[in-house]
Amino acid sequence: MTPTASPATAAAPDRSTALTVPAGLAGAVVAETVIGDVRGEQGFYHYGPYSAIDLAQQRTFEDVWFLMLHGRLPDGAERAALLDSVAQLRTVPDELDRLLPAIAGAGSQFHPLPALRTALSWLGAHDDVAPLWGSTTADRRRDGLRVCAVTPVLLARLHQLRTGMPLQHPDPGLPTAAYWLQAVTGTSPTPEHLRAIDAYLISTIDHGFNASTFTARTVASSGADLVSAVCGAIGTFSGPLHGGAPDRALDGLDEIGSLDRARDWVRSTVAAGDRIMGFGHAVYRTEDPRARMLREIGRTLGGELIEFAIGVEAEVVSALAELKPDRKLYANVEFYAGVVMEQCGLPRSMFTPTFTVSRMVGWCAHILEQANGRKIIRPSAAYVGEPPVRPVPVMEPSSR
Amino acid sequence: MTPTASPATAAAPDRSTALTVPAGLAGAVVAETVIGDVRGEQGFYHYGPYSAIDLAQQRTFEDVWFLMLHGRLPDGAERAALLDSVAQLRTVPDELDRLLPAIAGAGSQFHPLPALRTALSWLGAHDDVAPLWGSTTADRRRDGLRVCAVTPVLLARLHQLRTGMPLQHPDPGLPTAAYWLQAVTGTSPTPEHLRAIDAYLISTIDHGFNASTFTARTVASSGADLVSAVCGAIGTFSGPLHGGAPDRALDGLDEIGSLDRARDWVRSTVAAGDRIMGFGHAVYRTEDPRARMLREIGRTLGGELIEFAIGVEAEVVSALAELKPDRKLYANVEFYAGVVMEQCGLPRSMFTPTFTVSRMVGWCAHILEQANGRKIIRPSAAYVGEPPVRPVPVMEPSSR
Repeated sequence: MTPTASPATAAAPDRSTALTVPAGLAGAVVAETVIGDVRGEQGFYHYGPYSAIDLAQQRTFEDVWFLMLHGRLPDGAERAALLDSVAQLRTVPDELDRLLPAIAGAGSQFHPLPALRTALSWLGAHDDVAPLWGSTTADRRRDGLRVCAVTPVLLARLHQLRTGMPLQHPDPGLPTAAYWLQAVTGTSPTPEHLRAIDAYLISTIDHGFNASTFTARTVASSGADLVSAVCGAIGTFSGPLHGGAPDRALDGLDEIGSLDRARDWVRSTVAAGDRIMGFGHAVYRTEDPRARMLREIGRTLGGELIEFAIGVEAEVVSALAELKPDRKLYANVEFYAGVVMEQCGLPRSMFTPTFTVSRMVGWCAHILEQANGRKIIRPSAAYVGEPPVRPVPVMEPSSR
Repeated sequence: MTPTASPATAAAPDRSTALTVPAGLAGAVVAETVIGDVRGEQGFYHYGPYSAIDLAQQRTFEDVWFLMLHGRLPDGAERAALLDSVAQLRTVPDELDRLLPAIAGAGSQFHPLPALRTALSWLGAHDDVAPLWGSTTADRRRDGLRVCAVTPVLLARLHQLRTGMPLQHPDPGLPTAAYWLQAVTGTSPTPEHLRAIDAYLISTIDHGFNASTFTARTVASSGADLVSAVCGAIGTFSGPLHGGAPDRALDGLDEIGSLDRARDWVRSTVAAGDRIMGFGHAVYRTEDPRARMLREIGRTLGGELIEFAIGVEAEVVSALAELKPDRKLYANVEFYAGVVMEQCGLPRSMFTPTFTVSRMVGWCAHILEQANGRKIIRPSAAYVGEPPVRPVPVMEPSSR
């Protein structure tokens, strides 16, 4: 083969029409959506035409799931029909069921999100999931419903296998909050706990173009199937810079231990260059409206933990205002989510999985919306390395 | 709980400082990189300071793998050391090995990419992969080397299990091209086939911020582990709008059947609104330099298929110039990749997996580079739905 003459010496990179976007795409509007929006300056977010917090306080998870799928709230018959469909889809194929112990694993640490991804990835290869490009809207909706319906079943089963608790078989026709609480705790939830978790799940279904949602949309933009897109999103969601770990905020409360130590703890954590988990948000410049709602729910449920958390919040916010006066740092959804989940008897290892149960519905809504776009997401980069002007050096023989 | 007063009636969305990016982020420069660049107008791409085509023609896959990891080419001792490390990492844990038959599946269709993702996802949960945020460069490189080393082993094993061919155990110290050809075909490759596949693998390691690479970087930006990032990338790569399927181009050649039918086939495909697989590229406005190199390799290997493909290419390019005069459509990498892989005896179901073996090295390089950035990728969207001004309607009771 003859070496190709390199045009690199003759011309510069194609940059004439390039648009440079801020690091992390911060503030860059990359798509249109009808799913919802986050107004960071106002401390407000909405799903379609409704305040998400109002929905969380006045509706059921299934109602908002329907809203995400159809762009409007259901009537009573439509809600019942959705619950019936979901009940049919809360099944794990026998072959996958036999793999779940090996997926849950026997190592020292349980990683519920990678385990969920492994199980869903298996389903994606065996369940005949439709490619997003070239399939019908009905096919895509069916896949989305299936994935959202089976996610709490898989996560709860993996948890049961890992902890050795008796396998739970809640009525598959139960609403998601009831199904989840019973499957994970092994007991029938109180109406107060049900209401609290339902509101939490609704409030965390969607939240703009966060990194996991954007990942789901990027995968979907290639026309790949819905399972591929959620497998990507799960990975992003598991990252420490993505706010998806309410257990970390609770770990912080444990570390603080007592209210009089809160101020010093913030100082030493900030001095060490570490993040204060549960505070600050990429978009909100006000209090996170989810934190405000969850604080109120926590208060209604009562107990020492919520009082302690409220006290710590005040100390941390005031210490951060002093230490980082240029930032506006408030409690975010993670901070009170952990408290409320603990109050409802969920084990700490299942906090992030609980978040995953609800966010899956938002991811799927975004994937279905992206599938209508049919334009692959393919940005550019600025090459800042050594210019390609050198010939390839002659290869030395291996010393082996 | 009292409903929150919605500020939505009072104020518009926060759009004052928004930067709107073209659909699909086309032309938007979202990061700096030293890995390489694609110059679409010049028909040229490079890895660091070297023309990728020159590397493909003059170096080995392992040399360029080293370049991706370290930013420079290896000497003989370094090449040998890399091969030794890779040999150690080409192992599948017994527990995963026992799962592979169930992952390969017994359904009617074999989906190698979802199967690979399932296996890698399992490894990610059990192999103690380091989070990208808070780990050392050495940890991250080790994870990247591990994933790239084990990918051909897993793909070949899944293929062997599905086809029922005898399990192959090539010497794990073999260079990647030799290991792969032997594991997949069950025979020792000729030097010509080795050279052809080595050049193909090198030429497809990296290619700018394509959708799968960008997915890997987006997942990595949250600080998640490297396996999470490649699981996301595999999903994007599997989509029909992502150029990752050399088998489709060969299916097109089969459909055409004889040269005199090529022109009519293009006309009827375009008239039906379908894409001509193997032609056109998101970035190149010239001939794809990979197609040019692979055409030459195909010619050297000889035979009827390459002659037919060259004839079809001429017909398709001329027909497309007539039918779509405003576009510049040439053969892309897929078109001749399928021909060369067929010439080398690879089965069609393993064409895209072959591409995956090489691209995995590029994805890992991008993941490691992104991990240095520590800035989460979180864009915005423009909400174009009904404005959030309505109160939530009162809930109807379920009719169930």
